[in-house]
Amino acid sequence: MKRSFIREILENTTDKTISFAGGLPNIDTFPQSLIEEVANKILQNREVLQYSNSWGDNDLREEIAKRYTKNGFKTKANNILITSGSQQALDIVCRYYANLSIIIEKPSYLGALNLFKLNKITTNPIKLLNNGIDIKALKKVITKDKLLYLIPDFQNPTGVRYSLKKRKKIAKLIKENSAILIEDSPYSELYFNKAIPSISSFAPKNSILLGSFSKVLAPSLRVGYIRADKKILESLIAYKEAMDLHTSTITQKIVAELLKEELKYNKNLQKTREYYQKKCNYFSKVLDKELPQFNYQKPKGGMFIYGKISGINSTKLLEKTMQKGVVFVPGSEFAGEADEIRFNFTNSTKKDIKKGIKVIASLLK
Amino acid sequence: MKRSFIREILENTTDKTISFAGGLPNIDTFPQSLIEEVANKILQNREVLQYSNSWGDNDLREEIAKRYTKNGFKTKANNILITSGSQQALDIVCRYYANLSIIIEKPSYLGALNLFKLNKITTNPIKLLNNGIDIKALKKVITKDKLLYLIPDFQNPTGVRYSLKKRKKIAKLIKENSAILIEDSPYSELYFNKAIPSISSFAPKNSILLGSFSKVLAPSLRVGYIRADKKILESLIAYKEAMDLHTSTITQKIVAELLKEELKYNKNLQKTREYYQKKCNYFSKVLDKELPQFNYQKPKGGMFIYGKISGINSTKLLEKTMQKGVVFVPGSEFAGEADEIRFNFTNSTKKDIKKGIKVIASLLK
Repeated sequence: MKRSFIREILENTTDKTISFAGGLPNIDTFPQSLIEEVANKILQNREVLQYSNSWGDNDLREEIAKRYTKNGFKTKANNILITSGSQQALDIVCRYYANLSIIIEKPSYLGALNLFKLNKITTNPIKLLNNGIDIKALKKVITKDKLLYLIPDFQNPTGVRYSLKKRKKIAKLIKENSAILIEDSPYSELYFNKAIPSISSFAPKNSILLGSFSKVLAPSLRVGYIRADKKILESLIAYKEAMDLHTSTITQKIVAELLKEELKYNKNLQKTREYYQKKCNYFSKVLDKELPQFNYQKPKGGMFIYGKISGINSTKLLEKTMQKGVVFVPGSEFAGEADEIRFNFTNSTKKDIKKGIKVIASLLK
Repeated sequence: MKRSFIREILENTTDKTISFAGGLPNIDTFPQSLIEEVANKILQNREVLQYSNSWGDNDLREEIAKRYTKNGFKTKANNILITSGSQQALDIVCRYYANLSIIIEKPSYLGALNLFKLNKITTNPIKLLNNGIDIKALKKVITKDKLLYLIPDFQNPTGVRYSLKKRKKIAKLIKENSAILIEDSPYSELYFNKAIPSISSFAPKNSILLGSFSKVLAPSLRVGYIRADKKILESLIAYKEAMDLHTSTITQKIVAELLKEELKYNKNLQKTREYYQKKCNYFSKVLDKELPQFNYQKPKGGMFIYGKISGINSTKLLEKTMQKGVVFVPGSEFAGEADEIRFNFTNSTKKDIKKGIKVIASLLK
């Protein structure tokens, strides 16, 4: 099996590398003192150090369910299965559906493509348009009991967000075909202006929604979850259990306590959104000025700016920029086109953004 | 896929159930204040909240390697891959060797049997004797490039510990056949008197050693590892990465800091050994007095007492004892015999041990 290009790049960069490659949140957004405070609190209870149940901490499941319900998507604790990050969530689902075929977006998330391969799931890629997957093309291939994997909010790698209209159309199609949608939503709360309801909320019996706290709290917690119909979760629990017994109770309890501090949690989230919107604005300003040949659609949230420089080969460009200490991910890594590029806009300083883009521009001349 | 009997039992017990079922360490042995102290320390650094590399925290890998080297098994950081518990360690290895066949002990660890099934690995069980696997039987089935899965230290479920002589014989056999041994060693440090070197230390190029901090520190950390030749690990890293990107940096750093506090770490471990030896002595004293028909070999470490009550069906006995609030695991769950029983001796209070065994005895009359 092949490793992820991005993680290999990340491991081989130094402190001096300017990296637009990884989907790294900015450490400035982590609520460090809050995490410290609740970690202290939960470690007072010896029981938190013992084995716990494979479904996940009940407090945490309750808090996640409450949050969904509050946001208009009625959810109970028994609709939630806690996982070690949403990467594991997808692996659990893939193992259950091993050897089937799945409709995906083109391009799509590298970590998902790896899991489909690992679990011998054949992919059926459909072009992603500016407002979501191409519905006409989807209608042609969707059949009874078909699987779909979509990332409707600030998609990785493209940053595309599905329109409300398209979401409803997809939900209808899924229901009509008794299909199952795996909706990956790690960035759904990272909108700059307002939220759009998940596709799952329009087709709850036909959806498996994957969530994560990596982008809204801190990745090192490794806490994610699957939100699905109880019946689906009951088919998945044996996999979770076999894979790692359960997710760390310490990090689960940290997240549960942070969710209980709703005001503080929401304040941190709002701060993160504003911080990322500023980063995005700056990144795109620099792109427009220094790299005008880069053609892209400005995202409305998430972590990525995706676009193309017509006619170039972005993998070859990367080989050159790496020599100068600047990295990004070529579109081809996501099964995108050879002239496409994904930039992460959240993780670098203003100074590095300017410097890095200038280096890239200089190597195009 | 079927769930683990033990975890289902655990989820359905109440506070009042007397459980000899799960392999639960005793919460009294957890170094809670030490964990609190180091958690506080490591959370001062914002970087600990960011994504980290798939191999695991370098500090932690160094510390684990140092400990092995100190104990006579020369090891470098690049022989260590950190996993989310040793359950995940075994899953990673199983995915790499999917669809092959493997020699295992009879009976064997339930969580391993589940992973072999999940990864379509055919098992070839060989009788476990009082001092380790039956070597004559092993010689008959071992062939070139064969896989083996053994738990030489205080085996789960039997508590059997392999003699030094047998370990060396197995190491020789493995090398002669270019076989690969997966040596699962979660209990190796839980000896009452002294350590016996791992089989891996006699055949390092042919071994994949699985380690865990669940039994010597705290299970909820979910930190385990694979110790193997660098070349083997390089084949495994892509799986780890695809499965959950990396293990929580927070819990990894907690373990690393605890290992750095070597004196305190060793003191806690020694305290745990003495605590468990006392528990074991008490448990066996109660068994001998209240349940003399239970035939077993007293373990020299670990967490389990395994034996049989000739002629009974232990699953049927469990159905009765459950009604009275007492649980254990029938040998048949580990592919053992119908009249065998596994008792966990580490987790219950003296009072509950006495009460629980008496309840079992009363239901045999």
